[in-house]
Amino acid sequence: MANFASDNVSGASPEILEAVARANAGPAMPYGEDDITRRLEALVAEVFEHEVAVFPLATGSGANALALSVLAPRYGAVYCHREAHVNVDECGAPEFFTGGAKLVALDGPHAKIDAAAVAAAVSGAGVVHHVQPAAISITQASEQGTVYAPGEVAALAAVAREHKLALHMDGARFANALARLGCSPAEASWKAGVDVLTLGATKNGALAAEAAIFFRPEQAAEFPYLRKRGGHLFSKLRFVSAQLEAYLTGDLWLRNANHANAQATHLAEGLQALPGVEVTAPVQANEVFAALPRALVEGLQAKGFVFYVWRDEGPAPLCRFVTSFDSRPEDVAALLAEAARLAGLGGH
Amino acid sequence: MANFASDNVSGASPEILEAVARANAGPAMPYGEDDITRRLEALVAEVFEHEVAVFPLATGSGANALALSVLAPRYGAVYCHREAHVNVDECGAPEFFTGGAKLVALDGPHAKIDAAAVAAAVSGAGVVHHVQPAAISITQASEQGTVYAPGEVAALAAVAREHKLALHMDGARFANALARLGCSPAEASWKAGVDVLTLGATKNGALAAEAAIFFRPEQAAEFPYLRKRGGHLFSKLRFVSAQLEAYLTGDLWLRNANHANAQATHLAEGLQALPGVEVTAPVQANEVFAALPRALVEGLQAKGFVFYVWRDEGPAPLCRFVTSFDSRPEDVAALLAEAARLAGLGGH
Amino acid sequence: MANFASDNVSGASPEILEAVARANAGPAMPYGEDDITRRLEALVAEVFEHEVAVFPLATGSGANALALSVLAPRYGAVYCHREAHVNVDECGAPEFFTGGAKLVALDGPHAKIDAAAVAAAVSGAGVVHHVQPAAISITQASEQGTVYAPGEVAALAAVAREHKLALHMDGARFANALARLGCSPAEASWKAGVDVLTLGATKNGALAAEAAIFFRPEQAAEFPYLRKRGGHLFSKLRFVSAQLEAYLTGDLWLRNANHANAQATHLAEGLQALPGVEVTAPVQANEVFAALPRALVEGLQAKGFVFYVWRDEGPAPLCRFVTSFDSRPEDVAALLAEAARLAGLGGH
Amino acid sequence: MANFASDNVSGASPEILEAVARANAGPAMPYGEDDITRRLEALVAEVFEHEVAVFPLATGSGANALALSVLAPRYGAVYCHREAHVNVDECGAPEFFTGGAKLVALDGPHAKIDAAAVAAAVSGAGVVHHVQPAAISITQASEQGTVYAPGEVAALAAVAREHKLALHMDGARFANALARLGCSPAEASWKAGVDVLTLGATKNGALAAEAAIFFRPEQAAEFPYLRKRGGHLFSKLRFVSAQLEAYLTGDLWLRNANHANAQATHLAEGLQALPGVEVTAPVQANEVFAALPRALVEGLQAKGFVFYVWRDEGPAPLCRFVTSFDSRPEDVAALLAEAARLAGLGGH
Repeated sequence: MANFASDNVSGASPEILEAVARANAGPAMPYGEDDITRRLEALVAEVFEHEVAVFPLATGSGANALALSVLAPRYGAVYCHREAHVNVDECGAPEFFTGGAKLVALDGPHAKIDAAAVAAAVSGAGVVHHVQPAAISITQASEQGTVYAPGEVAALAAVAREHKLALHMDGARFANALARLGCSPAEASWKAGVDVLTLGATKNGALAAEAAIFFRPEQAAEFPYLRKRGGHLFSKLRFVSAQLEAYLTGDLWLRNANHANAQATHLAEGLQALPGVEVTAPVQANEVFAALPRALVEGLQAKGFVFYVWRDEGPAPLCRFVTSFDSRPEDVAALLAEAARLAGLGGH
Repeated sequence: MANFASDNVSGASPEILEAVARANAGPAMPYGEDDITRRLEALVAEVFEHEVAVFPLATGSGANALALSVLAPRYGAVYCHREAHVNVDECGAPEFFTGGAKLVALDGPHAKIDAAAVAAAVSGAGVVHHVQPAAISITQASEQGTVYAPGEVAALAAVAREHKLALHMDGARFANALARLGCSPAEASWKAGVDVLTLGATKNGALAAEAAIFFRPEQAAEFPYLRKRGGHLFSKLRFVSAQLEAYLTGDLWLRNANHANAQATHLAEGLQALPGVEVTAPVQANEVFAALPRALVEGLQAKGFVFYVWRDEGPAPLCRFVTSFDSRPEDVAALLAEAARLAGLGGH
Repeated sequence: MANFASDNVSGASPEILEAVARANAGPAMPYGEDDITRRLEALVAEVFEHEVAVFPLATGSGANALALSVLAPRYGAVYCHREAHVNVDECGAPEFFTGGAKLVALDGPHAKIDAAAVAAAVSGAGVVHHVQPAAISITQASEQGTVYAPGEVAALAAVAREHKLALHMDGARFANALARLGCSPAEASWKAGVDVLTLGATKNGALAAEAAIFFRPEQAAEFPYLRKRGGHLFSKLRFVSAQLEAYLTGDLWLRNANHANAQATHLAEGLQALPGVEVTAPVQANEVFAALPRALVEGLQAKGFVFYVWRDEGPAPLCRFVTSFDSRPEDVAALLAEAARLAGLGGH
Repeated sequence: MANFASDNVSGASPEILEAVARANAGPAMPYGEDDITRRLEALVAEVFEHEVAVFPLATGSGANALALSVLAPRYGAVYCHREAHVNVDECGAPEFFTGGAKLVALDGPHAKIDAAAVAAAVSGAGVVHHVQPAAISITQASEQGTVYAPGEVAALAAVAREHKLALHMDGARFANALARLGCSPAEASWKAGVDVLTLGATKNGALAAEAAIFFRPEQAAEFPYLRKRGGHLFSKLRFVSAQLEAYLTGDLWLRNANHANAQATHLAEGLQALPGVEVTAPVQANEVFAALPRALVEGLQAKGFVFYVWRDEGPAPLCRFVTSFDSRPEDVAALLAEAARLAGLGGH
């Protein structure tokens, strides 16, 4: 049955599974001393056209929290959107890993912060009573499925430079954003001023694989120790690295993301055409946020369509539909057909 | 080439890889709301003959640190062997996850602590100047490849009860210990007084799979939150759970462990027979610690045999050889033959 | 010269200094095992008409952070006003002592939060992705010098009970609030639903003395250990306790507070009467927030009057004037006279 | 009655109390922006003949933990004696403030560690599995009342330099050690290689005053923020600074220490002369450790003499007697007389 609850409900791409199986041939030194992990750093450097320090990881929360733990001191302030995953969906992981830094929640349309909002929030530098400005964290694509254009990132980076802040990009859905932007990985990251990218693969076809990518490798000096004491250094790391290698090889990441994005766009267009439905955020990646009449929500659920009721208020609850690398066009079509039928527009 | 550096240099059992591939069929709710994870708890309860709370994880350091973080307050004391993995090989993960608890390092032959040593160390209860006695942590099999008999565990549990300490077992190589003991999983754990077992599968055939098993589920109340904020809750958790399910099904864990143990025993017997070689700890699981004449060490290395020089001192450095579920008897034989040749005993 | 920068610029009441000198007679057991500390608990219980656990401390930040560290788990959420001292003026002390709990900043007029705002913010209970609702923290008197009426506190306490939150009152200026309210200490605290009061004495005449007062002593079980490991258990604690004893004896605290409040009221009335001056928050304790024409601000500063320019924006910067137990009426009068002169209203 | 339980049972020197009273004249800017605090730094620099960064504090545990929190990363190792105050008497404060660093407990006669012991313990640098060597911490005078000679400190400093460790001196009883050594403050600290000295005044005549003294001020960059978020920045800091100023002025600290040391020496000589009594550690400061026949212990206690039974074992429990700046010679004499009487040597 069609499940649009999250891109996490999908399994793994066949290419990823095959890479894991291939990685199983023969012994390999543990903890990243294996050949696959070694060549991954070169591959990432090539894909991003920049010297990098790369750390394979297996959860996005771990990747984000570890990245922030080297960018912010324990008395630091990290500026992010109020709805940012790091702020609301990680049960305090950033606070834990940083040793108590404060996430300063900012507002902004469609889950994006802009340079002016950050500039207005930065304060207290050098005053011991206040947490010290340390980093900006943005999510690409954002928690509402919108995408930061390189120029928007660059504007944030300018504020960062002015106040000596690091710029972190939570790229849990970086491939979806990149597919949308049509620019190069470099243009979407370090060329726009990103210092550290936590690149997600899990939501887009991996079993469990993320990477913390430092474009200024010297910032990563403490990372290996923090990763280990966080319990995030895998003994058989080759199996994580193999997923990332397959992910970045032959454009698998972009193919997967393009497919998911296209399904989301199709779904959004179909929903938007229905009476009483409002798509509440631009659909720029693989998520659709839409307010649906309650009867429509309940009717779809009754037919077994799965999606999140994001905010269950009023006559038209806000719903989230997430598409994935393996979302089937026929499932999207079936949902739209059922929705049209429930809205009294259906033919049959 | 024969690699005895660690059981971590091995890949995964075919049965485990197949289970992961099988788990890839169709969508599944994330974060442990999937069917495989649900039935895993029942399976563990059946295997251990006890009600349990089970949390699939992917690294041993994460599993240990999270377990200790619910057993010890931030001002707690955890009694363990000086050589315990939690004390020396996790870069401070237990201190990090507990918020600053202290590991109190105890001595004892062959990496095992005994009840008397713990009883002598426990002090300061109720006195605010001192960290407060909170837990005992033992490793099964130990860091020298020795095994706690159920009676030894029970004696430690008696001390634990007397002082209101929790008893944690780091079971990174629990299957190897169990295979050696020949008792039931229950007898080796809760029947002997263990409160929490961190059961390892990674070293014994999994890609990356561990489980924190609470025999008193009420002690696990905070665990889900701590796991999440530690970055250790996997979105596609079914892929971890599937590994554990396969591991505990059809005695795979014991078959793998028996094979590894047998290779270690064979290796130890062969080494012991050589002049100048001393096996320094009883070989009760899948690790052999032996002091080898330096010429022998260097000769084996020159031939490509891989193992750790554990303590590089004196004329006979202490070496560690670890066997695994897929160690090949012919590799063990080849090592012993080469060693015999180097020792001047070889036939050719 | 008249200094209205803070009540912290004042020294100590003679009664407090005398009590410290008196406490210096003869040896006394350290770490709170002395007679003065022992009888302090009885005195606080009598003053507050309730069983209490009392912990003498020496800084407000320490007192607040320690209190929150027993009320919120490391993955907890503490709801407070955006301007709360715990949120913006303690350099992250609450995050540090709690081990990473999150302060959720709420808005509300004049630095007070109300029950509806908290009720709207509480969310995520039982969901592992989110920090867990744990406590409400309010400041009495608030950071804008306003005061919570017992009924307002009771309304917050009702929300707290409904969601199983603890209610913490940062009473850095509790005496000033109490003097204003004219109710009993009990009515302003536990009778209104406060669980823990951090009672400040430093700003109101002590050298350095605060008290964490638990009205549910069972909530304080971990406090002694947390205090010690926070470095906040004084060896010669009698000298802190003696300050608190003097403070609560013979109504010194209320006399001091009444004096400070009266000076603030007088100051506010005088400022308000000037053209172009706006007192921006009700003056209910010992702080006056007022927007003053820039020329007036600069003119007063040029004459040596000291106060904080709270928000240096626009033609009428917001200024803060704080009065104290020893603010001299003639200094208030002098400031008002000079202000009138600068405003062109002065006679001479 | 004579109380030798601790130097903490004494009150404050009159000079210190007078300084506090003097500091109470008029307003002063808070948080260390006052004149007394400003001139304290110059005074310490003069006394120690070196550029310094000085932070007045009020508890020794706070001072030590804060000092270590800038010297060791959260994954660091701090080498200290097993009996060190930081290791056993601060309820885990160093682990808390460092964010989880590990104190590595070393053995050594009379509570002192030597260079060889540290050199043997340092290991794991650069290996992610292990906590990283970060600092050495020694106590002067030690927890058994012995004193490090400058040469011994210099030998430890050489090891520190070799392994890039910081050298911290817990100087809770630094004045007592200095009085014994007869050298300059500089010779006992930075000239011997100490990086950070936490200088205690509380045990030697202050109400509550300690100072963290950085001889390499650049190491103190984070200290102000860590002090604030630790709740250890006093608003009316002048009252702490005034104690330290008085302490270091006119040799008060050395006069006080000399008196205490002399009483300890006298007490030790008297006890040593009694049959069955063994003084177990050289008496080099103001503490006497002695094994006394149980009957003698109980007899003295029955007469109201107060001291700690340090280790209550066997026929001659180990006892600790601590003298102070205000220990009365007649009390020492009375104790010795009573002891002699109990030992059957007394005349009357």
